[in-house]
Amino acid sequence: MDSRTDTYPILLWGFGHMNKVVIKYAQEKGHTIVGVIGHHDIGKDAGEVAEIGAINVKISDEKDAVEVITKTKPRACILATRSTMADLAPTLRTLGSLGVNTITIGEEAFYAWNTSPKLSEEIDTLFKANNATFSGTGYQDVFWGYLATVVVGCTHKATKLECFTQYNVDDYGRALCEAHGVGLSKEEFAKNISENATPAYVWNSNEWICSALGWKIKKTSQVLLPTTADKEINSKSYGKTIPAGTATGMKAIVTTETEQGVTIETTMIGQVYYDDLEDVCSWTISGTPSTSIVSKKPDTVGITCASAVNRLKQLVESAPGYVTTDKFGPILYKH
Amino acid sequence: MDSRTDTYPILLWGFGHMNKVVIKYAQEKGHTIVGVIGHHDIGKDAGEVAEIGAINVKISDEKDAVEVITKTKPRACILATRSTMADLAPTLRTLGSLGVNTITIGEEAFYAWNTSPKLSEEIDTLFKANNATFSGTGYQDVFWGYLATVVVGCTHKATKLECFTQYNVDDYGRALCEAHGVGLSKEEFAKNISENATPAYVWNSNEWICSALGWKIKKTSQVLLPTTADKEINSKSYGKTIPAGTATGMKAIVTTETEQGVTIETTMIGQVYYDDLEDVCSWTISGTPSTSIVSKKPDTVGITCASAVNRLKQLVESAPGYVTTDKFGPILYKH
Repeated sequence: MDSRTDTYPILLWGFGHMNKVVIKYAQEKGHTIVGVIGHHDIGKDAGEVAEIGAINVKISDEKDAVEVITKTKPRACILATRSTMADLAPTLRTLGSLGVNTITIGEEAFYAWNTSPKLSEEIDTLFKANNATFSGTGYQDVFWGYLATVVVGCTHKATKLECFTQYNVDDYGRALCEAHGVGLSKEEFAKNISENATPAYVWNSNEWICSALGWKIKKTSQVLLPTTADKEINSKSYGKTIPAGTATGMKAIVTTETEQGVTIETTMIGQVYYDDLEDVCSWTISGTPSTSIVSKKPDTVGITCASAVNRLKQLVESAPGYVTTDKFGPILYKH
Repeated sequence: MDSRTDTYPILLWGFGHMNKVVIKYAQEKGHTIVGVIGHHDIGKDAGEVAEIGAINVKISDEKDAVEVITKTKPRACILATRSTMADLAPTLRTLGSLGVNTITIGEEAFYAWNTSPKLSEEIDTLFKANNATFSGTGYQDVFWGYLATVVVGCTHKATKLECFTQYNVDDYGRALCEAHGVGLSKEEFAKNISENATPAYVWNSNEWICSALGWKIKKTSQVLLPTTADKEINSKSYGKTIPAGTATGMKAIVTTETEQGVTIETTMIGQVYYDDLEDVCSWTISGTPSTSIVSKKPDTVGITCASAVNRLKQLVESAPGYVTTDKFGPILYKH
């Protein structure tokens, strides 16, 4: 097999914490970075900014995106800017209309068919029309997705799937901090976050699981609560200290009920870490038999970035349209 | 979709601890048990023997297998008798020549291409000639297989895969106890087990992982050591007490080196449990990033039996021949 058929000219759109890791992984896997679009350091060499050495690709401003794409003809784009389909839509319209296969770590895109049905359909139609594929991946692809479905596979009868997952919003940049209500008072959190209709990320992953397992969703609902600390906390992404008693992040409990009678309940805590808080992801499948798995201190950032790069082959080879990764099968690792 | 297309007339071959659980799971999933072949309770109703109520299927003797198969026309057989290809071969020749899709929990069959190449090729040819599929599954399908490959999928660069797995041989019947050297003195263990060329089960699962990930095997080697207790231990499967100092089971350390430079090292302890010993399976993927997952007290028996039943659809729909489950994709759960 010609290994070069698995490596592609790649565009990175967004050049924050995540794509600065992605650029290194993508290069080491043999892909060629042909374009980088960012908000800061415009005109600087992207490799130098990411501290991997010059790569002769300058960071371009978003306003020059069409020119960058038509000039460099990327086979795929790794999009790491915002979390929701609404926020990603303008960028997706550009990429879709130019026929660029795109995978994003924007969390809603993992399975947005129910949370943003109109945008999902629009993007699906646009990418299909231009013979390109759009998909969503990230930490959730394995940890909120395939880990659960693989273990359910060796279960005779599942009655409930429970996940507890915790991550440090400080690792993901300012946008994520804001989406988690970091720094808000309890009243502000209640008004801006809890009463806000924005589904937590695990809403999308719960529904991805239903899609993967062929379960029909009756209803997904969520409760969003602020996490707080009883002392002042430092946050590098938020850019200032978080006063004691104000939100350090968010605890979301998302429950998906299915017509099959199985309930998926995911508790997700994303907060600015302090003291001995650490990442964890656990699944308990209740049923016959019941099975639990735990991963302590998964490297959430590394996993997110590796997932994006490792998904490129399946993205490029997929049927066109908006195709969620439950349709791709597990992520293929290529050494 | 017509759900009946996923349920089949099933033959159970072997009616020890495992297929007495399988019969219940298979029935509850809508399959019809059309034949049961066993060593004990010949002529008795299989459902009554398994304590799930009469099913109007009598347990047949192995010598009547051809008659049972030609009369009942099973679409698939779940074979749960012995562990090695050599021990399974006579049964597989009968099933293959009659064109019965067969899945076994015999551990070597999980990936026997290197440990029993001639038998694997013979069985592959026979099943192909009769348009049927043979495969191996069990606890190892998820816990020694897909759990590892799914987590490797979200790794940028893996350098070593380490597994620690422990199970109670007392749960699996006398054949497994014997294969683990239960009751042997240190000298007998050294002579009969350690110097014996029989590969430990995780030899096969290590090689399954290489097949799944496209890694080329340089060499697999193993060290087999007896586990002992400093007191007398009771064993229900072994049928008598195990004197202090004689083998309670086996610790196998199997190392597979690959041309990709990644090493898979699996430590497997199968022993008769006492005191607070309990099942565990853990994987540590070292690399960029490193990731660990642990499952405590997985219900090894339930998982083994559920895996066999849940694999039936992929078995029946597979291309013919000896097809290992890395080619099937993860186990499909059907509610």
